Amino acid sequence: MKELAFVTGASGFLGRHVARCLAGRGFRVAGIGYDDWCGLSPADWGMDFWKTAPVTLESLETLAKDAGEPAMVAHCAGGASVAFSLSHPHEDFHSTVSTAVDVLEFARRRAPAVRIVYPSSAAVYGAANVLPLSEDTPLAPISPYGLHKRIVEDLFLEYSTGWNVPTALVRFFSLYGEGLRKQLLWDACNKAREGVFTFFGTGDELRDWLHVSDAAELFHLAGQNAGAQCPIVNGGTGKGHSVRDILTQMGLLWLPRMVPQFSKVSKPGDPCHLVADIRHAQSMGFVPKVELASGLAAYVRWFRKDLC
Amino acid sequence: MKELAFVTGASGFLGRHVARCLAGRGFRVAGIGYDDWCGLSPADWGMDFWKTAPVTLESLETLAKDAGEPAMVAHCAGGASVAFSLSHPHEDFHSTVSTAVDVLEFARRRAPAVRIVYPSSAAVYGAANVLPLSEDTPLAPISPYGLHKRIVEDLFLEYSTGWNVPTALVRFFSLYGEGLRKQLLWDACNKAREGVFTFFGTGDELRDWLHVSDAAELFHLAGQNAGAQCPIVNGGTGKGHSVRDILTQMGLLWLPRMVPQFSKVSKPGDPCHLVADIRHAQSMGFVPKVELASGLAAYVRWFRKDLC
Repeated sequence: MKELAFVTGASGFLGRHVARCLAGRGFRVAGIGYDDWCGLSPADWGMDFWKTAPVTLESLETLAKDAGEPAMVAHCAGGASVAFSLSHPHEDFHSTVSTAVDVLEFARRRAPAVRIVYPSSAAVYGAANVLPLSEDTPLAPISPYGLHKRIVEDLFLEYSTGWNVPTALVRFFSLYGEGLRKQLLWDACNKAREGVFTFFGTGDELRDWLHVSDAAELFHLAGQNAGAQCPIVNGGTGKGHSVRDILTQMGLLWLPRMVPQFSKVSKPGDPCHLVADIRHAQSMGFVPKVELASGLAAYVRWFRKDLC
Repeated sequence: MKELAFVTGASGFLGRHVARCLAGRGFRVAGIGYDDWCGLSPADWGMDFWKTAPVTLESLETLAKDAGEPAMVAHCAGGASVAFSLSHPHEDFHSTVSTAVDVLEFARRRAPAVRIVYPSSAAVYGAANVLPLSEDTPLAPISPYGLHKRIVEDLFLEYSTGWNVPTALVRFFSLYGEGLRKQLLWDACNKAREGVFTFFGTGDELRDWLHVSDAAELFHLAGQNAGAQCPIVNGGTGKGHSVRDILTQMGLLWLPRMVPQFSKVSKPGDPCHLVADIRHAQSMGFVPKVELASGLAAYVRWFRKDLC
C-alpha cells in the first residue's frame, strides 16, 4: 500500500515539482491549492487527486476525508516574494503564517502519524553576510517575507517539541528552473527580449542557485528525516555565483548577445551575499545534479519556446 | 476635540480597566470584542461606543466608519492563559497573533496617524531566571502563550520600523485585581471556600504582582510614548513575592484561617522566578499605587461579596 502525501500549493513552482518527485518516489499524491495550471493538469505533475481550495484546517480535513489520511504533508503553499511582502505584509503574513499554523494543527491532531516538511528560506538569515551560511547562523530577517518564514520556523519547533509532530525545514536559497515567472532570470529574459539589459544592484551580490528539480529531491530527503527534533537543512549547491556572472551567462544565450549593466543601487531587503553551507544536506545524501550552465540554458529555451 | 481610542477586548480583565483609564485621561473610547459584561455595561467602564464583534481588519474598518477614526488602538484582545495555550495552541495563535496582525494592518493603512499599544507578557522571557528581568534579556518563551506573544512583538517591530506605525509594548508580569476569574488568586479563593488549601509547585516561586488599575495607568503612559522605534517596557512593581507569601497572606483573610500546602511539583510552562526591572517604566513616570496587601484584601472582599 502506497503512502499518501498531501502537497499544499501544488500548482506553484516548487509544489508541482515536489508532487512529481514524491510520485516518482512511490507516494500517492493529493494536491491542494489555487487552480493555476497553465494548460497542464495535476495528473501531468504526478497527482492522483486535486482539490481547488485555500489551505485551511477545514480544507485539509475535507481533503483527508476525500483522498485519505496522509503520511506526510509537503506544505509548499505560502507567500513567495520579498517584493510582494514589502507592499502587502498583511496578505503575506496570512498566506505564509496562517496556512502553516493550520497545517501544523492538522498534524497535531494526528501526531505523530503525519510528518510535515516546509520550505523555509535563506531570507531568515537576513544580511548575515557570513560565507557560507550554516544552519546555526543567528536568524535576523530583514524583510516581512523573511520574518514570516522565521515565525513559521518557530511554530514548527513549537509543534514538534510540544506535541511530537515529526517535522523538517529546508531553507532554500535561490531556486530557479523552467516555469518560474518572476525574479532575476524572468526579469533578465524579459529585458533581453526588449533589448534593455539593465539591473538593480552592483552585480557583485553572490547567490546560491539551486534547480527546482534538485530542490524537490532535497525536500523528499528532508521528509524522510522528519522528526520531533525538527531537523533544519540548507537547500543550495554550496557554490556562490555573482549576479553579474549569471546575467553574463544569460546574455550570451541571446542573439544579439547582451551585456548586463548595473544601477549600483540595491533594492530594499536585498542582502549582499547568500551562499549555503550544505554539509547537513550532504549528510542526508543530497547531491545536486543540475549544472548551472545547463539549467540557465534550459530556462532560456523554455522562455523562448513555450512559457509553460 | 477629544482624541478617540479604540480598545479591543474591552470586556476583558485588562481591557475594561484600560478603557476606564483612557476615559479618565480625556479620550473618547470605543470598545470592540465579545459581549461578556457580567451585568455591567460598556458605559460603566467609560466607553462611549461598543461593538460586539471579533477583532478583524474588517470589523476595525467598520468601527472606524461608525465611531470615527482613532488616534490610538489599545489592543487588549487575545489569548490570556498559558494553560489554554497548551491545550489549544491553534486557537491561542489565532486569538493572539491573527488579531494583532489585523490591528497592525489597520494602523499601517493610516500610518503614522494611529498609535498602537500592546500588552505583551513576561512569558516571553521564559525560564530566564534572571533577577530582576530587564527588557533586553534574551527572549526564550517556553509555552505557546509566550511564543505567540513574542511573535506579536516581532510583528510590532516589523510594522514600526517598516511602515512608521507608532507602537509600544508593555510586558506585564502577574496582573491581578477584582474581577479576575482565573490564575492563582481565583484558585486560592475557591480552594479556601472549599477548605482545601493545596497548590502546585514549591511555593518558593517569585512573582511580581501588579494591580490592574496600575497596569492600565502604565498602558496609558506607554501609549503616550509610542513611536516608530517601538519602546518596550516591563509592567510590574519591581518587587518579588513568593507564591507562599501571597497564599499565606490570602489564607489569613479567611475564617477559619488557611495555611497553604504545596505539591512540590511544578506545572509545565511555569518558570521559577519572574520579577521585573522597572527602571524603564519609572523613566516614563510610572509609580505603582496599589499596595499588595490592600490589593489582596480587596480581591478577597470582591470574591466573597459580588463576584462582578
